[in-house]
Amino acid sequence: MHQSETGLVQRSAPGAGAIRQALQEQIAHGLLPAMERLPSERQLSELFATTRITLREALLQLEALGLIYREERRGWFVAPPRLAYNPLARTHFHAMVEAQGRVPATEVVAARQMLASAEICRLLELPALSSVYQIRRVRRVDGRLVLYVEHYLNAAYFPGLLEHDLQRSLTELYRDRYDIRYGEVRFEILPTALLPEAAQALRVAQGSPALHITRINHDQQGRLIDCDLEFWRHDAIQVRVEVPD
Amino acid sequence: MHQSETGLVQRSAPGAGAIRQALQEQIAHGLLPAMERLPSERQLSELFATTRITLREALLQLEALGLIYREERRGWFVAPPRLAYNPLARTHFHAMVEAQGRVPATEVVAARQMLASAEICRLLELPALSSVYQIRRVRRVDGRLVLYVEHYLNAAYFPGLLEHDLQRSLTELYRDRYDIRYGEVRFEILPTALLPEAAQALRVAQGSPALHITRINHDQQGRLIDCDLEFWRHDAIQVRVEVPD
Repeated sequence: MHQSETGLVQRSAPGAGAIRQALQEQIAHGLLPAMERLPSERQLSELFATTRITLREALLQLEALGLIYREERRGWFVAPPRLAYNPLARTHFHAMVEAQGRVPATEVVAARQMLASAEICRLLELPALSSVYQIRRVRRVDGRLVLYVEHYLNAAYFPGLLEHDLQRSLTELYRDRYDIRYGEVRFEILPTALLPEAAQALRVAQGSPALHITRINHDQQGRLIDCDLEFWRHDAIQVRVEVPD
Repeated sequence: MHQSETGLVQRSAPGAGAIRQALQEQIAHGLLPAMERLPSERQLSELFATTRITLREALLQLEALGLIYREERRGWFVAPPRLAYNPLARTHFHAMVEAQGRVPATEVVAARQMLASAEICRLLELPALSSVYQIRRVRRVDGRLVLYVEHYLNAAYFPGLLEHDLQRSLTELYRDRYDIRYGEVRFEILPTALLPEAAQALRVAQGSPALHITRINHDQQGRLIDCDLEFWRHDAIQVRVEVPD
């Protein structure tokens, strides 16, 4: 609303906030279902009787909230529901995704043996010049790239690791081939932005918002066996923790 | 590096990624300490022999990573260390911040009794037309605004709540005045963006990245007593969870 010079109140074009709320409501009530493509920006700005600039602002707000996302040259889409991720549940990615009625997939980007960086030495409590396996993978939910993860394994505990199929669950590989099971786990969760390597793997713009989860895993004997550096699309995940009394 | 027409390799100006890494290293090694103001963008672009546009890109990457932040009309500053937040620890904000050698502060923005919205009815498992107390607060660490939080309390359990000092810890108020202690807790953590109300309270731009934590609290008798909708500056917090075997 806008106070005109004659003192009358005039109805003006909706602002970005009002457009954002209108679209948010349509999404919340399922009128715009997940994965549906939105009308073009031109059509939407006509629909809301607003400028392309204001409409763009509303769409960017919805993107920041994780409710819509864009695909290059294809336009805007309604985001699928976030995956519920309980870091306290001792379950692996595929089981977690399937339990939520969705389809998981894993691709190995690269795997190699290497000298541990200073950061990895710190996380795995290794001395200088230690050897680790690095496995870089991407993971999909319903075909959509949602997670880029770098696993670092203390090489001493996993002889011959690179000979195995690394597309499968590491949890299962550990158990079947090395008789190793996960014990105590530590997590750090921090909101951050995607650096070039992770952004490229997830095929989103560098600097896109992300949730960075570092997991440090011990085995059943209390040995620090590996750590995972996970980078999740910011709109793909919701962390849920339940703490009994 | 750039291949010139004569076939010689020329050294070109550093890209945004290289500048970001250089500054990141200075910050990591404490050469640029927390809260220190960076030189002006003009000075920095001269220092790195680059354009203002490339420099700006590097600064925006560092901001997205939570390593620097800007204050209106004052320039760029090195971000203070993130607060470690363990959702499993049954401790209140002031105790948590002080335990990390930092100075907490709380301000009440507003407090009132109101009809619970549909969302709050869902979270607190209340029937339609239920009454709740809403307390809106902001919290600071070392003087810096880091958290905007809306508390919703089931009014049935807290008669006369608004007569008390709401700047103090609710945990203590519950215990001292209502003989209520926290029992089972549920958390949801999701990366999101700040909507106008929260952005204004934290004095940052609307749409800034944030970590949204929803806490649902039961008391020692298992009654669902309140919920907190927390909006943290994305660069202020790091969630840490330790899960014993």
